[in-house]
Amino acid sequence: MIKVGIVGGTGYTGVELLRLLAAHPEVQLTAITSRKEDGMLVADMYPSLRGHVSLAFSSPDKAKLTECDVVFFATPHGVAMAQARELLAAGVKVIDLAADFRIKDTAVFEKWYGMPHSCPDILEEAVYGLPEVNREAIKNARIIGLPGCYPTSMQLGYAPLLAKEKPLVNEAMLIADCKSGVSGAGRKAEVHTLLAEAADNFKAYGVKGHRHLPETTQGLQAIAGRKIGLTFVPHLVPMIRGIHSTLYATILPEARNTDFQALYENHFKGERFVDVMPPGSHPETRSVRASNKLRIAVHQPDGGDLLVILVVEDNLVKGAAGQGVQCMNIMFGIEEGAGLMHIPVLP
Amino acid sequence: MIKVGIVGGTGYTGVELLRLLAAHPEVQLTAITSRKEDGMLVADMYPSLRGHVSLAFSSPDKAKLTECDVVFFATPHGVAMAQARELLAAGVKVIDLAADFRIKDTAVFEKWYGMPHSCPDILEEAVYGLPEVNREAIKNARIIGLPGCYPTSMQLGYAPLLAKEKPLVNEAMLIADCKSGVSGAGRKAEVHTLLAEAADNFKAYGVKGHRHLPETTQGLQAIAGRKIGLTFVPHLVPMIRGIHSTLYATILPEARNTDFQALYENHFKGERFVDVMPPGSHPETRSVRASNKLRIAVHQPDGGDLLVILVVEDNLVKGAAGQGVQCMNIMFGIEEGAGLMHIPVLP
Amino acid sequence: MIKVGIVGGTGYTGVELLRLLAAHPEVQLTAITSRKEDGMLVADMYPSLRGHVSLAFSSPDKAKLTECDVVFFATPHGVAMAQARELLAAGVKVIDLAADFRIKDTAVFEKWYGMPHSCPDILEEAVYGLPEVNREAIKNARIIGLPGCYPTSMQLGYAPLLAKEKPLVNEAMLIADCKSGVSGAGRKAEVHTLLAEAADNFKAYGVKGHRHLPETTQGLQAIAGRKIGLTFVPHLVPMIRGIHSTLYATILPEARNTDFQALYENHFKGERFVDVMPPGSHPETRSVRASNKLRIAVHQPDGGDLLVILVVEDNLVKGAAGQGVQCMNIMFGIEEGAGLMHIPVLP
Amino acid sequence: MIKVGIVGGTGYTGVELLRLLAAHPEVQLTAITSRKEDGMLVADMYPSLRGHVSLAFSSPDKAKLTECDVVFFATPHGVAMAQARELLAAGVKVIDLAADFRIKDTAVFEKWYGMPHSCPDILEEAVYGLPEVNREAIKNARIIGLPGCYPTSMQLGYAPLLAKEKPLVNEAMLIADCKSGVSGAGRKAEVHTLLAEAADNFKAYGVKGHRHLPETTQGLQAIAGRKIGLTFVPHLVPMIRGIHSTLYATILPEARNTDFQALYENHFKGERFVDVMPPGSHPETRSVRASNKLRIAVHQPDGGDLLVILVVEDNLVKGAAGQGVQCMNIMFGIEEGAGLMHIPVLP
Repeated sequence: MIKVGIVGGTGYTGVELLRLLAAHPEVQLTAITSRKEDGMLVADMYPSLRGHVSLAFSSPDKAKLTECDVVFFATPHGVAMAQARELLAAGVKVIDLAADFRIKDTAVFEKWYGMPHSCPDILEEAVYGLPEVNREAIKNARIIGLPGCYPTSMQLGYAPLLAKEKPLVNEAMLIADCKSGVSGAGRKAEVHTLLAEAADNFKAYGVKGHRHLPETTQGLQAIAGRKIGLTFVPHLVPMIRGIHSTLYATILPEARNTDFQALYENHFKGERFVDVMPPGSHPETRSVRASNKLRIAVHQPDGGDLLVILVVEDNLVKGAAGQGVQCMNIMFGIEEGAGLMHIPVLP
Repeated sequence: MIKVGIVGGTGYTGVELLRLLAAHPEVQLTAITSRKEDGMLVADMYPSLRGHVSLAFSSPDKAKLTECDVVFFATPHGVAMAQARELLAAGVKVIDLAADFRIKDTAVFEKWYGMPHSCPDILEEAVYGLPEVNREAIKNARIIGLPGCYPTSMQLGYAPLLAKEKPLVNEAMLIADCKSGVSGAGRKAEVHTLLAEAADNFKAYGVKGHRHLPETTQGLQAIAGRKIGLTFVPHLVPMIRGIHSTLYATILPEARNTDFQALYENHFKGERFVDVMPPGSHPETRSVRASNKLRIAVHQPDGGDLLVILVVEDNLVKGAAGQGVQCMNIMFGIEEGAGLMHIPVLP
Repeated sequence: MIKVGIVGGTGYTGVELLRLLAAHPEVQLTAITSRKEDGMLVADMYPSLRGHVSLAFSSPDKAKLTECDVVFFATPHGVAMAQARELLAAGVKVIDLAADFRIKDTAVFEKWYGMPHSCPDILEEAVYGLPEVNREAIKNARIIGLPGCYPTSMQLGYAPLLAKEKPLVNEAMLIADCKSGVSGAGRKAEVHTLLAEAADNFKAYGVKGHRHLPETTQGLQAIAGRKIGLTFVPHLVPMIRGIHSTLYATILPEARNTDFQALYENHFKGERFVDVMPPGSHPETRSVRASNKLRIAVHQPDGGDLLVILVVEDNLVKGAAGQGVQCMNIMFGIEEGAGLMHIPVLP
Repeated sequence: MIKVGIVGGTGYTGVELLRLLAAHPEVQLTAITSRKEDGMLVADMYPSLRGHVSLAFSSPDKAKLTECDVVFFATPHGVAMAQARELLAAGVKVIDLAADFRIKDTAVFEKWYGMPHSCPDILEEAVYGLPEVNREAIKNARIIGLPGCYPTSMQLGYAPLLAKEKPLVNEAMLIADCKSGVSGAGRKAEVHTLLAEAADNFKAYGVKGHRHLPETTQGLQAIAGRKIGLTFVPHLVPMIRGIHSTLYATILPEARNTDFQALYENHFKGERFVDVMPPGSHPETRSVRASNKLRIAVHQPDGGDLLVILVVEDNLVKGAAGQGVQCMNIMFGIEEGAGLMHIPVLP
């Protein structure tokens, strides 16, 4: 059994980790920390876990994290980088769901997250936890920076187009029009995500710039091995879970004869968590609700020069906690789908 | 033109007052205060008001409230009682949307609101602003304590049963099972009213006791002229606006031949904002959305001994801002429906 | 492996059966019928099942239902009673999610469902599939009439009060104020359950009479061994899944000293799917979302004479498909929780 | 007073017309037809209109439509063209909310709407009812084809860019990523718009082709006086009202110095129903809820070559009924804002 610790289990990615890990056949939940809720039963904060999780929160100093095999950080940005060195030194693997180990360029990190990076050497070692792109590196990683929710959908959605040696589309002018449920904003007391503000309403936000842009650009460039240009426009959808990314790319004249459906199917052949749907499909976010699946549909309206790629994922699963568990499975050499084969909940 | 000031215009009842008053034919919006937003255009906080309201917030000290004819308090409990004396002395009428002037017994007020009452003499003078019950007193009032949202629906729903000299129902065992949209909780940054918490979810709350219980009991006893016993169970509905109160009362043996439908229709004859629907109706909250109407249906399932009264209102209009404007119209001797004849927005 | 057939798998209880059974460790999905969708892959209708269910719908005549060990009917009322005899004769067990085998009095059935009962002898044999009440009978049953969604919550919510030899509450005046998400209305094209009609809205319906009333009354009387009187008022909540029943009962003078919390805890001791919550709790529907749990909280406001029992369940799981699987587990002598231990999905 | 008739008043655009016209100071509601609901009070179908509309539906043959000054068609496609000739002959003006008089090329109409056009001569005469583009023509029109909801937002959103003599953007590669609430699908009993299907869910639809594409292309070309190329991807948002269009356009090298904010502000100067918001704004759909306003924000992320134009409108008001009333006001020479100055309902 893998002994697992969770730092910061009171937010949405934390409770989702608990849902997945408590039912994972090879995991023993060992410690969960929360400074504020020290001593409180996890199931008292989240009655959904009554009967499934008997752990209590403990303050970070008391929790014996160094006795774990792996520790997940479901914390605000900045926490994981303060604690990673000690854990790694103790032989504990680290999986960070926040942004501390995503962006390789510390200047870019500082610009977007407003804090200096405190351990550039560990950052350099850290592996970006996107299994469908980075599986080999994840196998041997000691520390993982998990992709953000939007970046997961954009990178997997564009990957087949960019992974070819010769460009197929105008890579300088990619447009990602993305829509997310409000759980993406976390379990924070804020006015703009109140039901009375966000329900029966729709808006764009962060058009000027969003933290997931530099992360995604870095990822797409790593896939392409070339510079790319991306415009990313996020929107807030009055729903709880789910991301729908509508990706646009202009086909280059020399690539007009490409069979893009086949390109996508081949690219993801054998991937159990990526589902390339039949031509003409319109994937719905609910078709992946509460599951680790990501579904993609490839459209070329009117046979013209514009590709429209539709991608859906559950932002809390494939976009966060589920992807973390997937990485853990890979890191510990167990079945990649262990504890992750939930059938989506519909309706 | 009536010169109107608003203290605390940044919450939901504040913006609803602005929506109603900005289009009121006899009102001149004169001042709106917010300590925090001093100098900010109201329409910058609420773009829905762009083109309709040109006022800016001003800090309470700068706002010339004493030059108004009437001042609305859309503030937390405790604010109105601190400022009322000065305004009344200056000849300004006061309408408080919070609880400062609702409960006549200061000990009860203290128990439920956790603060002593600072002006019991003004409290004694204050009139409870429920026009369908108290119209005459409102006409000559200098200061109004507006009913809470739930209490409005319960009092108008039970009034015809209790207003008779001889009891018709078991008045010791009234049960009000009430359901409210989340705007009733106000525009406050809190976790439990986040969309990701409250959407696709339903729960009761405050079963042990809710501040609207003593207010409602006081109101029902005033209507009946007798002691009554009420159990009030509020629930949170995943919607923005609207209250649906399902009221139960056991018919006394001697009242079995009463025509309750006729009783309700007669009681509210001539009331423009109370609509007694035809027998068998199930009023929906959306049928009063954004309007000052309250609709009632009277049921006697299977012709048995239990009355089931269904009441719907928009908690921000008839349950708050609209009722305030209705009181203002009465106090200033103008048409009671002025500025309040909006047709509900459906769908 | 238990060979399972499903008749009518295109509705919500059908797809929920598929979600549960496809992941059930002891089940082999063998046949699923739909006259209209003959030949269509189940996963083409419900993309959420892609990768999990490879079956296609087949028309009822082609499906080899008699080769199954058990057949579930997720069909409109009237279908199961037309096919049950043949299946039973072939040694196949039958579990009906509709109402054909719920109500023992055929006259009552006819009155509420508008059709004569075609096999009163099988009806007599049928067992009411509420395991926490009827477990022993279910063990040996050949045919099960599964409770409706509302009746499950009302019966389990009232059971501890009624199961005592001496009445504890006024059993002639029980009041159940129930609230359901719209999936309870099924996957039928109807105007009143459109999102544009039902969202941001709340209403009561069927106050005059609802089919779940006679079923619940029959069940409560069976539990009590006495006549009871119930008023049932259902309401429609703008959410997908979930039922919240707020149950009222007046404590009899001789029962005032009862410890009702203990009564409930003892009554359900050892039940894995019924969770009596700590005193003062307000269970939320989302705390059981997509799971077979039912949670109960017991309130006695102000220590008075009125009990308020709060019950939540997922109408499609414990209120339908999950309860069916639970019965199947019992009937086939396997672990009662097999395939049913999903942790609720929150948020 | 203008005598107004409505054909087909039972759908969402019909009831919205009633909400607007019943409170219009210069309108006398004269007739409303529905074959199916002949004799039923309008307020019995829509209780929100109780106390505001006393008309009953009458069957088309009985309704004295030829005595009206203007008749609105809130009907399925094909109805208006069957009745327009007779009304026009009687001197009645016609405003069609469906598509019969939108598309000038009858072959295109036939392709997308699956029916031949029965009165090409009237179609030729008909004016496209987009006041901010076509005000002069509307003044003298006898018959109006009102724009669709999506096309209104796309045309007004792109108009300032296209109306210049020299192209500013790559007009061959316009991308409109649009999102609509479900009331856009009308009040029709269909499975895919049930709350249990569409709530807590997000999806694209019609990527292959949507009827609003040819209409919008025609409109944009009329504005530009040049051929344009548009990709239009509609999405369904789990909300009732509102459209949010995110429009993309690539700035041409020679236009890089354009002040696009000023361009938009100047273009719409004096338009009371189009609000160009300050730079950096993210308009929300609720900021125009239940009002005839359309709000636009202009973004140029990172000062790059891609323009992102955000447009919001209420699909039932500026996208349908409200625009119809606006046209009527223009046609009858009265104040363009008469009956249309509602302040948006927020929250």
